[in-house]
Amino acid sequence: MPLILVTNDDGVTSDGIHALADAMRTLGDVVVVAPLQEASAIGHALTLRRPLRIENVSEGVYAVDGTPTDCVNLATAVILKRLPDLVVSGINKGWNLGDDITYSGTVAGALEGALLGPPGIAVSLKRTPAYDFGPSAEAARKVASLVLSKGLPPRSFININVPAGTPKGLRVTTQAKRNHVTKIDSRMDPRGNAYYWIEEALDEYHPDSGRSDYEAVKEGYVSITPLQPDMTAYEALAPLVERLK
Amino acid sequence: MPLILVTNDDGVTSDGIHALADAMRTLGDVVVVAPLQEASAIGHALTLRRPLRIENVSEGVYAVDGTPTDCVNLATAVILKRLPDLVVSGINKGWNLGDDITYSGTVAGALEGALLGPPGIAVSLKRTPAYDFGPSAEAARKVASLVLSKGLPPRSFININVPAGTPKGLRVTTQAKRNHVTKIDSRMDPRGNAYYWIEEALDEYHPDSGRSDYEAVKEGYVSITPLQPDMTAYEALAPLVERLK
Repeated sequence: MPLILVTNDDGVTSDGIHALADAMRTLGDVVVVAPLQEASAIGHALTLRRPLRIENVSEGVYAVDGTPTDCVNLATAVILKRLPDLVVSGINKGWNLGDDITYSGTVAGALEGALLGPPGIAVSLKRTPAYDFGPSAEAARKVASLVLSKGLPPRSFININVPAGTPKGLRVTTQAKRNHVTKIDSRMDPRGNAYYWIEEALDEYHPDSGRSDYEAVKEGYVSITPLQPDMTAYEALAPLVERLK
Repeated sequence: MPLILVTNDDGVTSDGIHALADAMRTLGDVVVVAPLQEASAIGHALTLRRPLRIENVSEGVYAVDGTPTDCVNLATAVILKRLPDLVVSGINKGWNLGDDITYSGTVAGALEGALLGPPGIAVSLKRTPAYDFGPSAEAARKVASLVLSKGLPPRSFININVPAGTPKGLRVTTQAKRNHVTKIDSRMDPRGNAYYWIEEALDEYHPDSGRSDYEAVKEGYVSITPLQPDMTAYEALAPLVERLK
């Protein structure tokens, strides 16, 4: 039986992670190691300035007072004492699409798997007032089964995003380019001092994003994006060599 | 005069950021907006669950109680009230090389610039007992001058790593592949409960990393890596389409 590590960034009490763990139990032995508290938008952060604690919440379920990346590291080194065969992260309440994946703790969990060795899968569902995790769990199960049987190229991982309702099917996609905008809500506290909330950015993507994750979910398909950690801008190498002469 | 935003992840009191700001003042108007406290290994984290405060530390120098990514957003939306012409992040005490850049707050500052519009530059120096920021400041000034005059392709940014001592020259490089290993230091508190420190990983890189950032600094050169945020594994798209049929 393959060993599957399940993590997330919404925290160990989120119902999304338990729907995902249930789906993974049809494929292998499952251990859940997730943040004690919500760690959304935490990116690929690693906790280096304070020590971490592990709490055994229930049979096969552990909470770590840190980030998803911390969870994957403590899971492999302390809890499992080996690398799992697959790291699955989610089901996140809210999409992780396009360039925004660089902020995502959910995606970071899958990335950390890929950096350590085992393939990773991140799963995110459209934010809605109520959640039906069924189609997300089914898509995750299908992709996980494929990855466990056929593998993935080394150092790669998969980002799944699921629309609300019944998906029209699966679509393999690219990471969309984001028209990034900052919205800040400025407020005044009762003592007359300003404070600022970062608001969630608007859903604006470059029209040239092509067959992207964003386009797929907007059209009602499950988006399946293969990712890898190399951000080298290869086409910029030669011009830069020329200009630095 | 171009407007240059300077940030970092070591915090507003770090001497590295002021060495960088001094170098940038030879090229344009400089505003420093940096974390109030050290935010190393914070990745591309964005603070969404609590509001942020801005403190005007001195003329043109601001502290934000958040991450480098928060700093770039509050700088553009609240402090500068416009996009700067360049975002420069560092000088970090310690390299940000290879796949480890995905954990780096320093690199995230430059990435956030690139996502918002202006080109970004991250600058990191080898960790040593004492720091001479001179060669790093000079490399940053040279690359910043080039970027301000010639621009960069949209959505791209540059990661500079500098060896200790006098560099042999500049080398344009790719992001090295990391042989990722987790080291955890397990300890027991006075009440008999276990706690865990994540240690810094060893310096091990794939031999097939080619003309990489890691290779350049090891050989005594300043490494200049052009980066972009798209992590799509393009070569995995077609096989995945085939297998999901």
